[in-house]
Amino acid sequence: MTQPVLETVRAPGPLYREVADRIARLIEGGAFRVGGRVPSVRALRRSQRVSLATALQAYRVLEDRGLIEARPQSGFYVRLPPGRLPLEPEESQPPVRARPVALGDLVARFQQAARDPACVGLGTALVHPGLLPIRALHRTLAAVGRHSPQLANSYDVAPGSLALRVQIARRAFASGCTLAPEDLIVTNGCQEALQLCLRAVARAGDTIGIESPTYFGLLQSLETLGLRACQLPTRAREGLCLEGLEARLDRCRIKAVLLMPNFGNPLGACLPDAKKQKLVRLLAARGVPLIEDDIYGELAFAPARPYTAKAYDRDGLVLLCSSFSKTLAPGYRIGWVAPGRYRHQVTRLKYLSSIGTASVLQLAVADFLAHGGFDHHLRRLRRACAEQVARTTDAVACHFPAGTKVTRPAGGYILWVQLPPHVDAVALFERAWAERISIAPGPLFAADGGFRNYLRLNCGLPWSDQVERAIARLGQLTAKRL
Amino acid sequence: MTQPVLETVRAPGPLYREVADRIARLIEGGAFRVGGRVPSVRALRRSQRVSLATALQAYRVLEDRGLIEARPQSGFYVRLPPGRLPLEPEESQPPVRARPVALGDLVARFQQAARDPACVGLGTALVHPGLLPIRALHRTLAAVGRHSPQLANSYDVAPGSLALRVQIARRAFASGCTLAPEDLIVTNGCQEALQLCLRAVARAGDTIGIESPTYFGLLQSLETLGLRACQLPTRAREGLCLEGLEARLDRCRIKAVLLMPNFGNPLGACLPDAKKQKLVRLLAARGVPLIEDDIYGELAFAPARPYTAKAYDRDGLVLLCSSFSKTLAPGYRIGWVAPGRYRHQVTRLKYLSSIGTASVLQLAVADFLAHGGFDHHLRRLRRACAEQVARTTDAVACHFPAGTKVTRPAGGYILWVQLPPHVDAVALFERAWAERISIAPGPLFAADGGFRNYLRLNCGLPWSDQVERAIARLGQLTAKRL
Repeated sequence: MTQPVLETVRAPGPLYREVADRIARLIEGGAFRVGGRVPSVRALRRSQRVSLATALQAYRVLEDRGLIEARPQSGFYVRLPPGRLPLEPEESQPPVRARPVALGDLVARFQQAARDPACVGLGTALVHPGLLPIRALHRTLAAVGRHSPQLANSYDVAPGSLALRVQIARRAFASGCTLAPEDLIVTNGCQEALQLCLRAVARAGDTIGIESPTYFGLLQSLETLGLRACQLPTRAREGLCLEGLEARLDRCRIKAVLLMPNFGNPLGACLPDAKKQKLVRLLAARGVPLIEDDIYGELAFAPARPYTAKAYDRDGLVLLCSSFSKTLAPGYRIGWVAPGRYRHQVTRLKYLSSIGTASVLQLAVADFLAHGGFDHHLRRLRRACAEQVARTTDAVACHFPAGTKVTRPAGGYILWVQLPPHVDAVALFERAWAERISIAPGPLFAADGGFRNYLRLNCGLPWSDQVERAIARLGQLTAKRL
Repeated sequence: MTQPVLETVRAPGPLYREVADRIARLIEGGAFRVGGRVPSVRALRRSQRVSLATALQAYRVLEDRGLIEARPQSGFYVRLPPGRLPLEPEESQPPVRARPVALGDLVARFQQAARDPACVGLGTALVHPGLLPIRALHRTLAAVGRHSPQLANSYDVAPGSLALRVQIARRAFASGCTLAPEDLIVTNGCQEALQLCLRAVARAGDTIGIESPTYFGLLQSLETLGLRACQLPTRAREGLCLEGLEARLDRCRIKAVLLMPNFGNPLGACLPDAKKQKLVRLLAARGVPLIEDDIYGELAFAPARPYTAKAYDRDGLVLLCSSFSKTLAPGYRIGWVAPGRYRHQVTRLKYLSSIGTASVLQLAVADFLAHGGFDHHLRRLRRACAEQVARTTDAVACHFPAGTKVTRPAGGYILWVQLPPHVDAVALFERAWAERISIAPGPLFAADGGFRNYLRLNCGLPWSDQVERAIARLGQLTAKRL
C-alpha cells in the first residue's frame, strides 16, 4: 500500500504546506512537546482529511524546517526549533605565551571512568560498535589470512603495505590531496602518526602551537616529549582563530603547529577551506610545519567532506595524519601519515618505533576499502552521527540549566558544552561517575587546567532511553550548582 | 619393512661400534668429504654384511660424535668434526667512553638489500615462514573475529588484553620469572617495548650501556632518542664481559644498560645464569636499570631455555622485553614488556605512542598460546634452527679462507663471522648484493663503524643447494681479499 503513495508524493498539491503550518503552530504553542511524537501519517490523513501523500509531504516540510525528525519504525518526533537551539560556546582566549603541559592525574581518573563498562559512555569519543561493519571486516581479515598466509604474516616494514597505501591515496583525493602511495606511511593508528610527526619536527623544549581546547591525548604527547604548548584561540564553529595564531607565531617561537581542522576533538569545529589555505600560506611563509590530524574528517554530515589543509600544501610542510579508528575499526590500530618533506625522518622513526604495522590488518583494511562497501558504510555512519548529535543537542537544551551553551558541529560525534560559570565540571564528572555516567570534564582539554565549566559529550551511542535519561540526569546535577 | 628394524635397534650387538669406527676413519682420511653423503643404511648393510639394525646404530654413534647428520628423506651426510670447527671470534674491546651513535646510511642500504626478493636472504634475521605455524595461527585469528567480533575490534588500551598477558605470564615462568598479568604490557613488537623502556628510563644526552657488537636497531633507537652509547666488551660464547661493564659503569655515567643476554643479535651468546644474577646485583647496587631484550630466548637448542636476568630481579630494576616475532608471527607485531618499577611510565608511554595494540591480534595470539600447540611448534622450530646453524657453520668452515672465525651459538639462528683482518665486510656486502646474496656487514653492529671485517649470517632459511652455493660464493669473494 505504501509504494503508490510514495510515487505520487513527487507532485503534491499546495495543501501540504497548510497542514504543515498548522502542526508547526501546535508545536510552537506547546501542544506537541520537544522529544514527543506527532500523530502518525495515517492519523494525520484521517484527522485532516488529506491524502496520504499530502500528510507525508507536510511532515517532510516540517523536517526541512528542523521542527520534527523521522525515527525509523517509530514515527515523527518534535525537535527543538532552530531558534531555540542553545548558543554556541564563546571564543577561547588562552594566554599569549608557551608553557609546559601538566595534566596531572585527571586523565588517568577520567580513563578509568570512561572504560567502566557499568557507565553510560558519554565520556569516550567512540562510536558504538554496532555502527561499524565489524563482522564484514573480520570476514575480510579471515579471507586475507586464508588466501595470502605468508604475506599476512611478514614484516610489513615502514612505509607499509602498498595495497593499503594505494587505497588511502585514492580516498585522500576526496579531501583535495593528490598523494602517491609513496607519500604515505602506515602507522599504528593516528596517535602513533602524530607522535612520529612531533618527533620529526621538534625536540624537547620546543614549543608547539595547539588549539585551545584540544584533545588531551595531544597534550599528553607534548608533555611526554618535553614539548611546550602555545595554546591558540578558537571559535566554536570555525575552530582556529587565524589572527590569534598570527599574534603568537613570532612571540612564542612556535616550532610547529598541531591542529584538527575538521570536526576536531572536542570542538567539532570545521575551519573553512579558504581559511585552511590562508593558514597553510601563513605557516609556509614562516617555514613552520603543520601537523594536521584529520581523524574525524570523513564524518561530515554534508554529502561532501571538507578539504584538509594538506590540500593546499605546496611546500611539503603539512604532515597529514589520520586513521580508520573513528570510521571502521578502532581495534585494528591502522592509521597513516603523509609527512610531506619529513617523509624520510618519519619513515625512519616509524621503523624504529615498531618496525611496521601488522601486515594482516593492513591487507584486510586495504581489501575492505577496495571491495567492502566502505563508502556505503560511511554514509550510514554519517547519518547516524548527525542524528545522534542532533538528539543530544536537543536533550541538552531541554534538560540543562539556562545559560548552557553547546557547539553545533557539522561532522563527527562530539559536543562541547559550556556550562554556567559557577559549575565545576570536575566535580560534576565525579558525581556523574558515582551515578554510572561517564563524561569528559573540560580541564582535560587544556594544558593548564582551564575550561573548568565545560564538558565534552560523546554522541557515538545510538539514541536510547538510557542515553536520554543520562543526559537529563547530568542536567539535573548541573542545575544543582555543583 | 622398516618398523621391525627400529624395534630391534634398542639392543644391538657391539659390532655397530666397529663399523662406526671404520667409517670415522674414512671420513678423517677424506674418503668421505664434509657435506657429502655416506652410504645409505641399506648399502652399508650389504657392504659390511651386518644387520640393518647394526648399520643404523653405527650411524647413530657417528651422529653422536658429531661426524655425520641425518637429513630427512635424503640420508646421512658428513659434518665437520668438532675438532675442526673454526675458532670463535675474539673478545670485543670497545673504548671506555660514551659517544653519540652515528650509523649513517649503511643501515638504509643494508635494508634495501635485505628486502630484495631476488636475494638469497642471509642478511635479515628472520626464520623462513615455512617454519612458522602461519596457517594455524590465521585460522585462530579468523575464529576470534567470528566468535568475539566486538571484543576483537575495540580499543585494547595499554596494558592490553588480559587473556594474552595471562599466557605470557605463564610462559615467562619457564624463564625463571614470577610475573602477574598486571606486571605486563602488550606492545607492537619488541622494538616498541624497547623504545618505551628507553624513554622511561633516560632522556636525550644520557648514556646507555650496550653490548659491542649489538643489533643496529638498538643503536638506531639510541641515535633517534639522542642517547649516547657506552659500548661494552663481549665474549663470543658468554656475551657481556662483566668486568668490562664494571670498569665503565662509573666512568661513563651509565644511566641504563640495554642487553640481549640470551642468544643476542648478532653474537648468539648466552650469558650464564649465574652471571645474570651477578649482573643484576651489580646494577641494582648502583640503581642502574637493565633493559633486557629476550626476543631469542625461547630458541635454545637445549631442551630447557635459559633464564632471563629478570628472573634475578629483586628491585624492579629489570625491564624485560620480548615478542613473538621470532617464534610465531613476525607480521602480527605482538610484543610485551615487564617494566618492573617503571610500569606506570611505560603504560603511559605505550598509551600515548599507539593507544593500544590491535585487539584481534592479541586475542588470536592468546588463543594460540593457550590451545594452538605453541610448545610443539617451538620444539620443531628449535630443532630446525639448530640444524641450520650447524650446517651454515660447516659450510663457512669449508668455503671461507683460513683464519675465519665463527660463533657457536647455543640458540637462535644467527652466526657472527670474523673474517681475516684485511677483509672489508662493507665491500663484501656490496659485491655479494650484486650477485644476489644479502649479508649484514659488521659495521652495522657498532656505534662508530667498528667490526669492519665481520659479518652476520642468517641461518633462518631451511638448508638448500641455493643457500649452500651462496655461502660458498661468499667464501670465494672473501678469499679474493676484498
